[in-house]
Amino acid sequence: MRSSLVLSPRDLEFLLHEWLQVESLTKRERYAEHSRETFDAVLELAEQIATEQFAPHNRKADENEPHVVDGKVVLIPEVAAALRVFAEAGMNAAALPEELGGLQLPAVVNQAVHVWFQAANIGTSAYPFLTMANANLLVAHGTPEQVQTYVPPMAEGRWFGTMALSEPQAGSSLADITTRAVPQDDGSYRLTGNKMWISAGDHELTENIVHLVLAKVPGGPAGVKGISLFIVPKFLVAEDGSLGERNDVVLAGLNHKMGYRGTTNTLLNFGEGVHTPGGQPGAVGFLVGEQHRGLTYMFHMMNEARIGVGMGATGLGYTGYLHALDYARDRTQGRPLTGKDPSAPPVPIIEHPDVRRMLLAGKSYVEGGLALGLYCARLVDEERTAEEEADRQRAHLLLEMLTPIAKSWPSQWCLAADDLAIQVHGGYGYTRDYPVEQFYRDNRLNPIHEGTHGVQALDLLGRKVVMSGGAGLSLLGETIAATTARAAGTPWADLGEQLDGLVQQLGAVTATLWGQGDPQVALANASVYLEAAGHVVVGWLWLEQALATEGRDGDFYTGKRQAARYFQRWELPKVGPQLALLASLDTTVLEMRSDWY
Amino acid sequence: MRSSLVLSPRDLEFLLHEWLQVESLTKRERYAEHSRETFDAVLELAEQIATEQFAPHNRKADENEPHVVDGKVVLIPEVAAALRVFAEAGMNAAALPEELGGLQLPAVVNQAVHVWFQAANIGTSAYPFLTMANANLLVAHGTPEQVQTYVPPMAEGRWFGTMALSEPQAGSSLADITTRAVPQDDGSYRLTGNKMWISAGDHELTENIVHLVLAKVPGGPAGVKGISLFIVPKFLVAEDGSLGERNDVVLAGLNHKMGYRGTTNTLLNFGEGVHTPGGQPGAVGFLVGEQHRGLTYMFHMMNEARIGVGMGATGLGYTGYLHALDYARDRTQGRPLTGKDPSAPPVPIIEHPDVRRMLLAGKSYVEGGLALGLYCARLVDEERTAEEEADRQRAHLLLEMLTPIAKSWPSQWCLAADDLAIQVHGGYGYTRDYPVEQFYRDNRLNPIHEGTHGVQALDLLGRKVVMSGGAGLSLLGETIAATTARAAGTPWADLGEQLDGLVQQLGAVTATLWGQGDPQVALANASVYLEAAGHVVVGWLWLEQALATEGRDGDFYTGKRQAARYFQRWELPKVGPQLALLASLDTTVLEMRSDWY
Repeated sequence: MRSSLVLSPRDLEFLLHEWLQVESLTKRERYAEHSRETFDAVLELAEQIATEQFAPHNRKADENEPHVVDGKVVLIPEVAAALRVFAEAGMNAAALPEELGGLQLPAVVNQAVHVWFQAANIGTSAYPFLTMANANLLVAHGTPEQVQTYVPPMAEGRWFGTMALSEPQAGSSLADITTRAVPQDDGSYRLTGNKMWISAGDHELTENIVHLVLAKVPGGPAGVKGISLFIVPKFLVAEDGSLGERNDVVLAGLNHKMGYRGTTNTLLNFGEGVHTPGGQPGAVGFLVGEQHRGLTYMFHMMNEARIGVGMGATGLGYTGYLHALDYARDRTQGRPLTGKDPSAPPVPIIEHPDVRRMLLAGKSYVEGGLALGLYCARLVDEERTAEEEADRQRAHLLLEMLTPIAKSWPSQWCLAADDLAIQVHGGYGYTRDYPVEQFYRDNRLNPIHEGTHGVQALDLLGRKVVMSGGAGLSLLGETIAATTARAAGTPWADLGEQLDGLVQQLGAVTATLWGQGDPQVALANASVYLEAAGHVVVGWLWLEQALATEGRDGDFYTGKRQAARYFQRWELPKVGPQLALLASLDTTVLEMRSDWY
Repeated sequence: MRSSLVLSPRDLEFLLHEWLQVESLTKRERYAEHSRETFDAVLELAEQIATEQFAPHNRKADENEPHVVDGKVVLIPEVAAALRVFAEAGMNAAALPEELGGLQLPAVVNQAVHVWFQAANIGTSAYPFLTMANANLLVAHGTPEQVQTYVPPMAEGRWFGTMALSEPQAGSSLADITTRAVPQDDGSYRLTGNKMWISAGDHELTENIVHLVLAKVPGGPAGVKGISLFIVPKFLVAEDGSLGERNDVVLAGLNHKMGYRGTTNTLLNFGEGVHTPGGQPGAVGFLVGEQHRGLTYMFHMMNEARIGVGMGATGLGYTGYLHALDYARDRTQGRPLTGKDPSAPPVPIIEHPDVRRMLLAGKSYVEGGLALGLYCARLVDEERTAEEEADRQRAHLLLEMLTPIAKSWPSQWCLAADDLAIQVHGGYGYTRDYPVEQFYRDNRLNPIHEGTHGVQALDLLGRKVVMSGGAGLSLLGETIAATTARAAGTPWADLGEQLDGLVQQLGAVTATLWGQGDPQVALANASVYLEAAGHVVVGWLWLEQALATEGRDGDFYTGKRQAARYFQRWELPKVGPQLALLASLDTTVLEMRSDWY
């Protein structure tokens, strides 16, 4: 596949360098070994591997789902081959510190690297990305021995990792997990229970699989406060790093999904007695950090995973948009609205305003989503490496605010971009002869996993905007105001004023919601709040992009400006009725009873 | 499957009898043989056959697509079995006049019959529904001999019919079709060309297949004015009705789609010399009506098909909604927003406001869509059987106005209902173990076929609102005003006022669009116009429904009223920004150039 149909290198260059000034990070100690050249080199390598190794088997992996033969998960061979190239290029370890074999790449560049693979083949990309999220968690919360044992093999791509949270009876409701972990005399634990929806939960791609498992130690507090986190490797690891006994983590079944079919998605049984490591029942697990603090650690991984989900949604929307654009320039059909001379030759369908509308909407969504994801990744770098503690804290706070939006907004709107990509293709787009239908199916997962849309909404309105006395919302407002202040006196002053008004309204609505005293009423319409806030944030990032084009000529910049105008004129006005609904403290939904449906 | 998960008989009863007063049609001569009892009987039969014969193989047909073996299309056997029961029950001929073997059912009851099958199994239902659209066209425009030859076998389900319009190079652009029809000395024609996207284009379900084919007679006018319509049977028919020689209509391939997989979708070659009926080249065709008027005739079928597509979208959304409702009442997970005591048992997820929101949105979409489709069908009855010519003309005009909306609104919003149905199910809804993912894939076709969303938009804004000096829009406004006048003094007065305001704005916007002189500018944002008009129309039908519940108590009516309030408070406000955008004569899309993307 042409790389120009996977992602736009020009847009990445614009966002990373002309907008986010990523090169300035090389002045920080952590990234001092890097330069514009090393960033470009790794991005070009990512583009090449994504295009040549990942994209070509995207459809084949969709059509040939993982299946079980003799108890082993069988994948098409292209997956292992692509992941080998990926690992050999050092991509697994791109963001890890040098001492663990990594490239110590800034998070923002690493995110740009990732999105190439997500756009090219979301199913195959999940294996290393879950692995890296797992490794990052261990680096943050594991003991030095745990890090040394598990992280380097994952960095090399010899082992992969998972996150095992959900259970069949308790999807989003982690308070209700029932997997038990019983402490042993040697400091290890024995786990029993069943986990559901575990991506990459079993396969033969690697020698070992490192599961990070949430479980409850008997006698602990009820609910989420009694959850602990354990490392449960598929094969136990000896002190010298060699693989030992088979642990009692057993594949209990595969899930068959509408999309994302290339990623093995599993039910796993822990400690059901299929294996008895050390002659004892139960899966051997090793506590990460302290007992009962598992959810806190897991949220470290979850926040990263949520931004990663948003970026996956963006990647899928982006490639869909680029395919639609390519098709619309190539496919001839019909004639201009005016001058329907039937003897004139048909025109490329991009000449039809409604096709241009769909493509412009798609452009505003996918480029907006990419800007949002990269901005968040840039905040991760700021959080890690800013010189002043106050700056690090501000970055942390802003990132906390933006995480539910960075997860949910692209999951909604870049899915919409794939929907529009099908529509641009007409009947052909609905067939499996064109790739856009797969992007649409794949992308439909993103509003569900790693916390549904509704869960993100409660996170934003129920936690993030009220934490620290509303400091997060204030900071977001100040950050947007700094941009709109720069817009004054430019052709973008009107967009700045529009955003100022919306931010002010959002603050007022938040005060109204939490001021009326009933948390049920405050939270009942949280999804609308999430969507309104998301559009305001992306509108702001479109203003940021528009300002970054000022003084620059050429089609690329003109297109950016037109997409910003589209978002201003077509998208931001949708927020008005949402805020009005919230401000009215509408209880239509809250009043509705099960028997009335 | 429980019929309560396919469609709601209670809602159908409400719409048909408590709202549309369908029984009053039995006073008309055409329907004088009917009664509430015959209507109920046929609807109960439809429910039974849909539930017992159609729904059970819906998933299997999706998983086992039609495929070709030795040149023949192979379907799973359940399709033929279900269609046999369907035909034996007289369902094929339900709406045909008695003299052609039909039940002479009112269109509105027939539409209610249809939606049972569409909701139960859209793929299998397509075969008889295309056949009936074909038969209806012949009844309207064929010669008595053509009717006698082709319609009774289709009414009996021994033959099926198709509509063959599109060609590979010309999807929506019928002006560019190149299939040729050359007149012969005996009055027949010989056709050569290729047709694309022909549903039910080949199969072994019936003895014969009657294709209605658009083609151009050489020497005719260019563009759509040179299109004629032909009957092209798969097997030629002798005067006694027996089947004769194989015609030269040959299956050239099957399309493989994201959904709607149960319906064979074909490429057909006409007159490529595989068969030579009568020893001559070309597929034998028989002209319907006059030369060069084919598109006019076809539009007779297309209008019916468009409302049918809208109803199919509604049926798919409706069953998705009912599955989600059932799941939400059954599945327990999490705890109330207030009182998160982890030791309390989890609650059914319908207790969570965000789940109630999704279900209430779904309810407002699918019940709104059903009301819209049945209202249009009721207009068909009025058009056919009203005593006064003026009433028949008014019904015709209003139906013309509403057809693009009846096609596009459910295609957008009942697809949204399926999207929400997946979301209510969480991760399970995304797996193929639950039916909602199929409904979502199936429903994605509806914004494309029988005229895309964009085509419907141009039909509404470019043709319907300007025809007869704007009489259609005026009539729609008067019709809505008659409802809002009834709302005055009731608890629904506010909704009436809201609608009055929106209708007034829609009229003003229409005048602005067409008053500024540039048709390109007028039509550039036609899709937004279509969506705004659609929401206004469905808002009006929700007011109609709400008024029909007045004075009635009980959960069903309370639920209807709550859904009407939802539409009023959550959905109608979306129209404001759309009308404002249109009123601003926004040219953001029109200005966009191919090179700027």
